[in-house]
Amino acid sequence: MLITLTTDFGSADPFVGIMKGVIAGIHADAQVVDISHGVPPQDLVAGALILRHSVPYFPCGTIHVVVVDPGVGSERRPLLIQCDGNYFVGPDNGVLSLALEGRNPTRIIHLSNPVYHLQPTSTTFHGRDIFAPAAAYLSRGLAADLLGEAVPDFVRLEWPQPIRAADKISGKIIYVDGFGNLFTNIREGELQGLSTAKLVISLGKYEVNGLSSSYTAGTQKLLAVINSWGLLEIAVYKDSAQRRTGAKLGDPVQLSLLK
Amino acid sequence: MLITLTTDFGSADPFVGIMKGVIAGIHADAQVVDISHGVPPQDLVAGALILRHSVPYFPCGTIHVVVVDPGVGSERRPLLIQCDGNYFVGPDNGVLSLALEGRNPTRIIHLSNPVYHLQPTSTTFHGRDIFAPAAAYLSRGLAADLLGEAVPDFVRLEWPQPIRAADKISGKIIYVDGFGNLFTNIREGELQGLSTAKLVISLGKYEVNGLSSSYTAGTQKLLAVINSWGLLEIAVYKDSAQRRTGAKLGDPVQLSLLK
Amino acid sequence: MLITLTTDFGSADPFVGIMKGVIAGIHADAQVVDISHGVPPQDLVAGALILRHSVPYFPCGTIHVVVVDPGVGSERRPLLIQCDGNYFVGPDNGVLSLALEGRNPTRIIHLSNPVYHLQPTSTTFHGRDIFAPAAAYLSRGLAADLLGEAVPDFVRLEWPQPIRAADKISGKIIYVDGFGNLFTNIREGELQGLSTAKLVISLGKYEVNGLSSSYTAGTQKLLAVINSWGLLEIAVYKDSAQRRTGAKLGDPVQLSLLK
Repeated sequence: MLITLTTDFGSADPFVGIMKGVIAGIHADAQVVDISHGVPPQDLVAGALILRHSVPYFPCGTIHVVVVDPGVGSERRPLLIQCDGNYFVGPDNGVLSLALEGRNPTRIIHLSNPVYHLQPTSTTFHGRDIFAPAAAYLSRGLAADLLGEAVPDFVRLEWPQPIRAADKISGKIIYVDGFGNLFTNIREGELQGLSTAKLVISLGKYEVNGLSSSYTAGTQKLLAVINSWGLLEIAVYKDSAQRRTGAKLGDPVQLSLLK
Repeated sequence: MLITLTTDFGSADPFVGIMKGVIAGIHADAQVVDISHGVPPQDLVAGALILRHSVPYFPCGTIHVVVVDPGVGSERRPLLIQCDGNYFVGPDNGVLSLALEGRNPTRIIHLSNPVYHLQPTSTTFHGRDIFAPAAAYLSRGLAADLLGEAVPDFVRLEWPQPIRAADKISGKIIYVDGFGNLFTNIREGELQGLSTAKLVISLGKYEVNGLSSSYTAGTQKLLAVINSWGLLEIAVYKDSAQRRTGAKLGDPVQLSLLK
Repeated sequence: MLITLTTDFGSADPFVGIMKGVIAGIHADAQVVDISHGVPPQDLVAGALILRHSVPYFPCGTIHVVVVDPGVGSERRPLLIQCDGNYFVGPDNGVLSLALEGRNPTRIIHLSNPVYHLQPTSTTFHGRDIFAPAAAYLSRGLAADLLGEAVPDFVRLEWPQPIRAADKISGKIIYVDGFGNLFTNIREGELQGLSTAKLVISLGKYEVNGLSSSYTAGTQKLLAVINSWGLLEIAVYKDSAQRRTGAKLGDPVQLSLLK
C-alpha cells in the first residue's frame, strides 16, 4: 500500500524527511510518494484542493497523509478516514474533506491509541508522532480499528460554489499554480448547454472571449481553458496570468454570454 | 527500469505527485527518481541542459521523462526516443535533444496510441495523461512500438557553440546554479593546448586570471574552474558569483591568453 | 540499508537527482530518502542541526550522507564515520558532528580509495563522485574498511551552549523553520526545576510569559513552547514569529523568572 504525503512543511526543513524516517522504522518496505509540501502555511483550503485533485490519480488502497495542522496539540482530533478503499490520515480540521465531498466513509477512527504514537509525543509535530506511525502501521497491515475508537463524523469544508443567475455565473479564483495560472471554482459541468464560443469571462478589468482548447491558442493575451482539474482557468501562453493581471486568491470571476 | 522526472512544475503544486500516482497505478513496482522540478517555466534550454548533464550518471536502460511543455495540447507531438539503451519521453520541442547530441536514436515513436493515454485526456497536462503512462508501461515491459507509430525525426536544439578566433574564444553564460555559480558554454576540450595559467576570462568589467583547481583557491574574489559538467564556470568561494557580478543568462564571457 | 541525503543543493538544480542516479547505478535496490536540500548555502551549523534532529527518527543502520561542502576539492577529507550502528558520510568540516555529540565512533574512515570514486573525479562535486558511491557501496554490503584508511579523529562543532547565571539563562536563536518559528539553543533539560508558569522569555523588545503546551494557546501574540526538537521555541499561532519580531539567527534570547 502506497503512502502519500501532503504538507505545508516546505522544502527547507527536514520535517518531511523525519516523517519518512519514522515510516521506514515501522515498515521498511513502505512506498512513499510526495504529493506536495508547498501548501501555503496553515492553508486548509489549498491543502484540501490539492488532495482532492490528486487522489483520483492514485491506485485504490492508497494511504493519503495530510499535515496542514495549525491546531496541532490542541483538542482537534487526529483522524483516520477510510472511504472507497482509500485511507485518509490527518487532523480533523477539514483538510481531508474536499477529497471526500459527497461520499460516505466506511469508518472514521480517532487516532487515540497511544500504543501507536511515538513516545514521547510532542504537542507540535503530530506528523512525526501520530500521523506517520498510523500510516506506516496501516501499510504494514494493522487493522484500522486498533489505532483508536470509531467516531461518527468529521469536519467538512464546503466546495465554494459559484452563484448562478439567469444570465451569468459568479465565481472566484480558488487556486493559483506555479505558472501563475488562475484556477476558478467554476467546474466544467457548469458550462453544459452553454455555447463556449459565446462565453465572456471577466476578471476585474480583463475580459476573455470564448474557451480555448489549449494554451497555444493565443500569444500575449489572456485565454481561458478547462484545465486538468476540470476547472475553468485563466492563463497566458508562456507567461503568468497572475503577474499579467495582478489577480489573487478570492478575486471574483464572472461568466456571461455574448448577446 | 528506473524512471526519472524532469519538469518545470516547481515544488508547490501537486503535479509531480500526480504523475507518480499515475505511474504507481500502472506499475506498482516502478522506481521513480526526481532529477529536477525547478526548470524555469517553459525554459527548453535549461531543461535540455539539465537532462544532458544528468543522463550519463544514470544506469543504462533508464526512462527519462521530461515535461517542459508550453505547447501542450497543440500540434507538437508527444515522443518516445530510444537511444543507446535509454528511453526519452517528452514533447517534441527540443527539450530532449541536447542529451542526444551527435547520436542516432534506435527508434522515435510518436505517442499517438490512445489506448495508453489516460482517459479523458486533458489538453493542459500531458505529463499526467500521456508521458507518465508511457513511462510506466515501458518500465513494465511493454514494447515501445505499441505506444504509437515510428517517425523519422525530432526537433533538435543546437549546443550553443562558442566562437573561436585566433586569439580568443567568445562564449556566454548558459546556466546559473542555486549557489550563483555561472556556467559557460565553453567546454573543457576547448582549452586543450592552451596554458591554463595564462588564461584571462572576462565577464563584463570583471576579469579572472588562470584556472583554479577548486573553489577554495581564492576567497572574496572571482575564480574560474572546470566544473562537474565539464564546463568553464565562474564562481566565488562561499559566495554567489551571480550576486557579485550581476551577471545573467546569455551574458558574454571571453577567454584570451595573457601576452 | 536506507540512505538519507542532506545537502545545500536546493531544489532547482539536478545535483540531488544526479547523486541518486549514481547510487542506482551502483546498487539498484538502494532506498534513498531526502532529509533536506534546503540547507542555506555553505551553512555547516544548519546542516549539522538538521542532521542531529533527524537521525534519531531513522532506523538503526541508516547511511546518512551530508553534502554541505564549501571546501570540496581542497585538503578537507571526505569521511565515513560509523557510530552506534549508523553511518555518516560527508566532508570533514563539522557538518556531521552535532549528530555525534558525546559519542565515540566505532570507526572513522578517510574515503581515500579511488577504486570507489567516480572517474574522472571532479574537484567541485564530491557528492556525485565520492559520497554517493561510498553510500551506495556500503548499502550493498561492502566493508567500510575498503573505502579508505582509518583515521583517529574528525572535526567537531560545539553545541552552542546557553550561559547560565544565578537568575537567568542567556541563549540565542539557532534555527528558524519555514513557518517562521524561532528555535533557541535552550534545551528542555535546562528548564528542569524551574516553574514554567513563572518563566519570562525575552527576545529584543518582546517578552513572553510562561510556556504554552501548544501553538493554539494564544492568538495574535508570541508564545513559547518546547518544540519537537526538545528546544525552547518562540512562535505565533498561524503566523510567523520571525516576521512578527524581525528576529534573525544569532539574536539573543533570555530566560528569567518572574519575581
